[in-house]
Amino acid sequence: MQQITVHTHAPYDIFIGSGLLAEAGERISSLFPGASAAVITDDNVNRYYGKALMDSLSQSGIRAVSHVFPHGEQSKSLQMAERLYAFLSENEITRKDIVIALGGGVCGDLAGFAAATWLRGVRYIQLPTTFLAAIDSSVGGKTAVDIPAGKNLVGAFWQPSLVLCDPETLDTLPESDFADGAAEAIKYAAIFDRELLELLEDGQARTRLDQIIARCIDWKRTVVEEDERDTGRRQLLNFGHTLGHAIEQLSHFTVSHGRGVAAGMVEITRRTEALGLTEPGCAERLRRALAAYRLPTRYDGEPSALLPAILGDKKRQGKKITFITLQALGRAVLTDIDTDKAGDFLCRN
Amino acid sequence: MQQITVHTHAPYDIFIGSGLLAEAGERISSLFPGASAAVITDDNVNRYYGKALMDSLSQSGIRAVSHVFPHGEQSKSLQMAERLYAFLSENEITRKDIVIALGGGVCGDLAGFAAATWLRGVRYIQLPTTFLAAIDSSVGGKTAVDIPAGKNLVGAFWQPSLVLCDPETLDTLPESDFADGAAEAIKYAAIFDRELLELLEDGQARTRLDQIIARCIDWKRTVVEEDERDTGRRQLLNFGHTLGHAIEQLSHFTVSHGRGVAAGMVEITRRTEALGLTEPGCAERLRRALAAYRLPTRYDGEPSALLPAILGDKKRQGKKITFITLQALGRAVLTDIDTDKAGDFLCRN
Repeated sequence: MQQITVHTHAPYDIFIGSGLLAEAGERISSLFPGASAAVITDDNVNRYYGKALMDSLSQSGIRAVSHVFPHGEQSKSLQMAERLYAFLSENEITRKDIVIALGGGVCGDLAGFAAATWLRGVRYIQLPTTFLAAIDSSVGGKTAVDIPAGKNLVGAFWQPSLVLCDPETLDTLPESDFADGAAEAIKYAAIFDRELLELLEDGQARTRLDQIIARCIDWKRTVVEEDERDTGRRQLLNFGHTLGHAIEQLSHFTVSHGRGVAAGMVEITRRTEALGLTEPGCAERLRRALAAYRLPTRYDGEPSALLPAILGDKKRQGKKITFITLQALGRAVLTDIDTDKAGDFLCRN
Repeated sequence: MQQITVHTHAPYDIFIGSGLLAEAGERISSLFPGASAAVITDDNVNRYYGKALMDSLSQSGIRAVSHVFPHGEQSKSLQMAERLYAFLSENEITRKDIVIALGGGVCGDLAGFAAATWLRGVRYIQLPTTFLAAIDSSVGGKTAVDIPAGKNLVGAFWQPSLVLCDPETLDTLPESDFADGAAEAIKYAAIFDRELLELLEDGQARTRLDQIIARCIDWKRTVVEEDERDTGRRQLLNFGHTLGHAIEQLSHFTVSHGRGVAAGMVEITRRTEALGLTEPGCAERLRRALAAYRLPTRYDGEPSALLPAILGDKKRQGKKITFITLQALGRAVLTDIDTDKAGDFLCRN
């Protein structure tokens, strides 16, 4: 069992360890005495872990209700948030109660957004069941839904009150979903931590999962503490994301977030290496590590096609776009590029 | 010109004075250099003040776009928020830009909610054009939309970056809307400030508007600073609201907020006076002050009919409801009542 405390304006704990799902009720009832729990999960996750969580909650004397939504990114919508509000209202969830997000990133983002906005904010707990959610979206309080104009355009910064990460729930994760998490773990390594790359690049992350998850979360913790609202150092975590989001968007989200970011990281690093901004060899080592998890490492379309999506990125500040670039593996920096030069930069090979 | 600074976690200024609408562009361009402005307003307010604001903004070199929604509470919906997101997206409003709410409480709540959730939060400015919005909703950062289950059930605490209150914009306000503001001003007097009641109870508030607005806002400032998230002293501002909201809801919102609160304040004070909790004579003096603005001072229906709406109140904490009650005029306290005793309390006459 590992414990990491995140010191945001309201501090919260992250626990990582096998068996945490079964212990959830006990931990929650001692931390939030008297609170009812509204569990939000998708149909896939519910089949594997819904009953175990509900049993654990009720055995600890917690009044628990659950809402199951259809799995997939298309559920991360305002319409689905509206259904959650109706569910929370019908079940009389008040400000002293808690929302529990049991699932991957879609679930955490959607349930987190509903918690952030229900009654102007109720507490929520993240119980991530994917590698990606465990090391990325479950920590840091970014909640969101998608709208037709783009992904994650509507949301709130709203910190969870607790994160319980049980790596056993990753046993049922299909390889391709596991690879999405590996892409994100490799991203942490590229930005901050060369040694972490050594734990990942042989393709055997599953054998060292507790260690890798704790290490990634601890990096996320340091940036979230420094920069809760994503205006400074936290932006480093967007390495590979500007291109990655554009790739996802152009594929109409048939390319997953992890795959988009994987290709995005190599594509941008190939370009900055060619410009002499990045130590030689980084792009190739990144490429090999990602390929060990069968992740894509290039964008096969016309680079200029990515431009409109990049210019619509919400991290854009007026006339410039902030790209995250590597000086070396383990050392990332923010690099501003004028919007009218972004085309040249992208089409460079 | 009066200036009041609100020291919430990000401090902001409120200016009160005639002519501020015409000066808006100048003030905004110096405070937020380079920011574009997305003005949100309703069709009524737009007819009177839309052009003046847009002219002022463009004369100060600000790129300004505007979105006009149909007036009325029914616009305070998730569907309307979704239209605002589309408008903000189409006009490329990014995190360095600002949203401006030009209008009354519906406009401020709706535009504030859109600002709170667009790209996980962009800055916004309140330009209240009703007495009620000037002294109540434009200060304190409560934003919200309504859902079928109830009013203001979905929202966020999101502080404005600036409030510009031009009392001249109240000249076009119909008497009944003005009275809604007077009810709220009388509420501040009842909770905090017996002397303020003397400025109001002759029915001539229009002749002392700057003074009354500044005094009310200053009271709101003190509670918001102490209690930004509405968990302690800020709850005092809900005097008359628990019954008032229920009255509004039962009328399907044909009774306005101010009218509901007016009746709610007298109804609760009559009851607490009868119980010996309130100094004798308070209910009658309150009643007369409200009647001077032709405000309702009683609920004509069956008191027990209000109970279901009261039990659904979002300020309810499990098994008790917190009512705000007067010890005397100018001195309010929080009083908890068990939910199973609320019926008795309500039906007492």
